[in-house]
Amino acid sequence: MTITIIGIGLMGGSLAITLKENGFAKHIIGVDANNESIDKALRRRIIDEGVGLEEGVNKADIIILSTPMDVMLELLPNILSLIEDQIVMDVGSTKEGLLEIVKNHPKRQNFVATHPMAGTEFSGIEAAVPNLFDNKYTVICDEMDSSEEALYKVKCLYESIPMNIAFLNGKEHDVHAAYVSHISHISSFALALTVLEKERDEERIFELASSGFGSTVRLAKSSPDMWTPIFRQNRDNILDVLDEHINTLARFRSLLIKNDFETFYKLIEEANSIKKILKK
Amino acid sequence: MTITIIGIGLMGGSLAITLKENGFAKHIIGVDANNESIDKALRRRIIDEGVGLEEGVNKADIIILSTPMDVMLELLPNILSLIEDQIVMDVGSTKEGLLEIVKNHPKRQNFVATHPMAGTEFSGIEAAVPNLFDNKYTVICDEMDSSEEALYKVKCLYESIPMNIAFLNGKEHDVHAAYVSHISHISSFALALTVLEKERDEERIFELASSGFGSTVRLAKSSPDMWTPIFRQNRDNILDVLDEHINTLARFRSLLIKNDFETFYKLIEEANSIKKILKK
Repeated sequence: MTITIIGIGLMGGSLAITLKENGFAKHIIGVDANNESIDKALRRRIIDEGVGLEEGVNKADIIILSTPMDVMLELLPNILSLIEDQIVMDVGSTKEGLLEIVKNHPKRQNFVATHPMAGTEFSGIEAAVPNLFDNKYTVICDEMDSSEEALYKVKCLYESIPMNIAFLNGKEHDVHAAYVSHISHISSFALALTVLEKERDEERIFELASSGFGSTVRLAKSSPDMWTPIFRQNRDNILDVLDEHINTLARFRSLLIKNDFETFYKLIEEANSIKKILKK
Repeated sequence: MTITIIGIGLMGGSLAITLKENGFAKHIIGVDANNESIDKALRRRIIDEGVGLEEGVNKADIIILSTPMDVMLELLPNILSLIEDQIVMDVGSTKEGLLEIVKNHPKRQNFVATHPMAGTEFSGIEAAVPNLFDNKYTVICDEMDSSEEALYKVKCLYESIPMNIAFLNGKEHDVHAAYVSHISHISSFALALTVLEKERDEERIFELASSGFGSTVRLAKSSPDMWTPIFRQNRDNILDVLDEHINTLARFRSLLIKNDFETFYKLIEEANSIKKILKK
């Protein structure tokens, strides 16, 4: 099986490592607008070959799109127009807009929309690691619009890692992604900015920051190239969650103002129930 | 050296393990309102002996107060009234109110106010671990109000771990703690509540939550018994930070509404500079 990965960064690079290691891919071709990324991927032997887009598409059995969302929206229809019977899948963080763009494409059924729910705050080929996806969930969206063969092969790919598969429609996916991923990033970016603003002149105070602070702002290291297009694509859902999150914070604020620490205690207890859920 | 630890939970228990292991303490006495905690600490050999408050105070060279803040505010003046030449230190998360309560106590100079900046989202003796404090920072507050001998011994205790020591006055400490610790907790509690509320009927969706979400809401597992008194004690500073944090989130919201993704990109870039700081 020859796999062409378009966008050799954290996600694409990590998939390349994993699929080569487990034998699913015999040959991995990398395509990237950034030559340096291709060079690094070749030197680390993450890819076997770096070529241009058209050659990469022609030579592949499966094409994996793992660029930022804005690039993906442009590339996907072009790639579908280039293929004959190749299978195309994406690993993007938003789905509704992408699915809309290709919904009437004659090769729509060769495409499978997926989102492996894994990542780190780092980006680029330097951040690619083995085991990033092991036993996590991947979402496959609007699977009824993909051919049986395309769906089967993409399922085999994910099961080889192994990953668990969940099926959602594109709209549901984007709502849930806003809640379990996108809002965490906005919260981290905002927290980092709030604290950076305050501590501008007192750098050494960060020496006092413990691992709890580090954990909460970890995602604030995430790349604007990757995340700005996600926020643009999922704007409406994110606005809904952000409004609710601001309301919850405003509720805590109001309890502090009223010195109502009894209700504050109860809200913390409620929040604690996240324990049960995160244990899974 | 005999050390009595009042409040054998995450902090007290972890200090007990560390100070016994490194030889700073020959004998560790535990005092806790909860008999079960004492039993567990004895069974795990974290303490050598469990006794009542008065006996614990009498037998100690150094007394470490590691209860929740509300209990500490009541206990500290009483303990200072019980001691002769013993040294008392606390490891509490807020300082201004505590220092105010004992500022005119005749034994004030036997007391050293400290805050080791380390912890986890877990609590209780079950959560006590070795190495929790290694090479982290501890803050010592208003050191000029402690006797030279008390200060020297407490510094030796922290250096034995080893921990780095920073000196701040109580007011500064509380402002900085609000920024680098307390707001992270409120943000996590609020994020957990926001997402729990939405996903109430869709529990399986949490299977999709990746490690990024887990990281951002990790602190939401923290105990209300510990945190409500901290929020009460540091209410004014936390309100300031919370207002700024809500404003930053509202700024992101307004950028989304206006579709101003150029400014959004720049803010993410600014937030990224937290990288440099967290590397330290």
